Amino acid sequence: MATFSVKAFGTPARDADLKLMTVDRRETTPQDVEIDILYCGVCHSDLHTARNDWGGTKYPAVPGHEIVGRVTKVGAAVSKFKVGDLAAVGCMVDSCGTCESCQQDLEQYCKNGFTGTYNGKDRHSGTQTFGGYSEKVVVDERFVLKVPENLDLAAVAPLLCAGITTWSPLRHWNVREGSKVAVVGLGGLGHMAIKLAKGLGAEVTLFSRTESKTEDAKLLGADHVVISTKEEQMQAVRGKFDVIIDTVPYAHDLNPYTATLGINGTLVLVGYLGPLEPSLHTVPMIMGRKSVAGSLIGGIAETQELLDFCGKHNIVSDIELIKMQDINEAYERMLKSDVRYRFVVDMASLKA
Amino acid sequence: MATFSVKAFGTPARDADLKLMTVDRRETTPQDVEIDILYCGVCHSDLHTARNDWGGTKYPAVPGHEIVGRVTKVGAAVSKFKVGDLAAVGCMVDSCGTCESCQQDLEQYCKNGFTGTYNGKDRHSGTQTFGGYSEKVVVDERFVLKVPENLDLAAVAPLLCAGITTWSPLRHWNVREGSKVAVVGLGGLGHMAIKLAKGLGAEVTLFSRTESKTEDAKLLGADHVVISTKEEQMQAVRGKFDVIIDTVPYAHDLNPYTATLGINGTLVLVGYLGPLEPSLHTVPMIMGRKSVAGSLIGGIAETQELLDFCGKHNIVSDIELIKMQDINEAYERMLKSDVRYRFVVDMASLKA
Repeated sequence: MATFSVKAFGTPARDADLKLMTVDRRETTPQDVEIDILYCGVCHSDLHTARNDWGGTKYPAVPGHEIVGRVTKVGAAVSKFKVGDLAAVGCMVDSCGTCESCQQDLEQYCKNGFTGTYNGKDRHSGTQTFGGYSEKVVVDERFVLKVPENLDLAAVAPLLCAGITTWSPLRHWNVREGSKVAVVGLGGLGHMAIKLAKGLGAEVTLFSRTESKTEDAKLLGADHVVISTKEEQMQAVRGKFDVIIDTVPYAHDLNPYTATLGINGTLVLVGYLGPLEPSLHTVPMIMGRKSVAGSLIGGIAETQELLDFCGKHNIVSDIELIKMQDINEAYERMLKSDVRYRFVVDMASLKA
Repeated sequence: MATFSVKAFGTPARDADLKLMTVDRRETTPQDVEIDILYCGVCHSDLHTARNDWGGTKYPAVPGHEIVGRVTKVGAAVSKFKVGDLAAVGCMVDSCGTCESCQQDLEQYCKNGFTGTYNGKDRHSGTQTFGGYSEKVVVDERFVLKVPENLDLAAVAPLLCAGITTWSPLRHWNVREGSKVAVVGLGGLGHMAIKLAKGLGAEVTLFSRTESKTEDAKLLGADHVVISTKEEQMQAVRGKFDVIIDTVPYAHDLNPYTATLGINGTLVLVGYLGPLEPSLHTVPMIMGRKSVAGSLIGGIAETQELLDFCGKHNIVSDIELIKMQDINEAYERMLKSDVRYRFVVDMASLKA
């Protein structure tokens, strides 16, 4: 199919830095929206994909799935967008649309596999997808989100992954006014979980290993901070929480946290892919009908709901704006958790 | 407080056989019902308590918490029962009645600890509770259940523990007409899970390690049997189930089962207390918003609901009726899973 070239930042190999390159985009089909990218958030998945940490990366790889921009072209059949509109794209650019999951607006669980915004396989052309570290992106309008006009656009970008990844479980497990929510880990996901749970009216507690994050957590809206290494503080919140959003991306002991769930409470893992070690113990689960669950990003309708909610409640991510050329340094800082709380690339730097 | 003596079968020490003994019951208080015990089911917990497998057993110990009998005396304030009524008692004989759990009819999760039918601490007298391997029991009417007149009374007994332990998660996780339910393990709990899920209108699958249980499972109502050691059969049910009731009482690998849960599916552990080894893997959970949960028996209102449902649908346990004097042999057979599917003691044998 017809294509056009765009400037992008990507990597030719797992051990190479990201650098300027050119990639092809498909020309807009009748269902497509072409977006001029203004900002793109930097997610840990970008780094893992660039370095093939999970296996399966095809090179060259162009990461980026927290995309905010303006519509520059629309296909003849596009009804939701017109040229000049703000638009956003998250982790998915397509799905089968017909399976049970897709029919329930759960495209993230598409039985036939959703098309990732990068390192996926384009359902139109069969070629590899390239992410948002680029000038423009072309996406089926079903996977393009509307962006509230009142928000700081750079700080909106992380809502497309960090935001929806925490919003979806908060909504699915029915967090509302008065719910008691705890968040484990204060990074890109954790800081959004605090803001969004607070926005939904919950009483929010951050679990942290150190006192150093207390002040920041409270500025973000947390009502309480519990230092997880202090037994006395952990005892004081036994049986308290309705929902715990666990954003920690590495193996860690869940048992101290399941003990803090109330009857019917659920701990939701959103950050860690792997075996639960040390072993999860069933006694606190059986003795209180507690659950441990997983959750992956969120569906498109739910992502739109999030953006609308954030527009209404004036919620955005706390970000550090960087130039595209500084992405390799940003990756190194991200590995050291040296960011409050999300890097966002100002794409004007790529076009300059 | 005033007491009276009853014949019972119990054990004086962890390494002793059960034998005839005499224990004291409190005289009926105004809220109490005195029940002449006709049948008492034999649960694995009875054996674990008799042998102090979980620690904390006080001796002498009189097990038995699947009790069916007839009312022989009622206190002045009792309103639900009169002399001559059928009555049943399960795993609990009391709870605080005032905590958040009790207020929600979840006495099994009483924040102040429910009073176990045996090896508990009587909230009236402060003395140890003795179970159903005895002539009579005296219980607060709030913890006494009504028994449908149309059922085989001996076969009703196991509903009070094996039945409610599987009924409660089936109801909590909303099993209904058309739900896809799987059961892991075909023992006392597993055979009730099949019957009850089928009674609720579900399509029911038994996971079994051997072909030998296929015929029995189908006679109990299972629509399908999947041999869990056959990879091809496990592949064929990937992503299928809404709810899995896992009744296995020892550590086992849950990962082959979580793979068979559908989107939003839940695996509920009802039989195993301990660490999950091998480790539970988060990938199938995150990739399908699946949960692993625990559940403990059920509340009193829910137990009455179960008995009423069984009366209406003519559901009882499959049992082998034994004499009280044969209990030690029955324990040994139970350890070898040599029972289809629950021993029930005919208490006439104790009184003879």
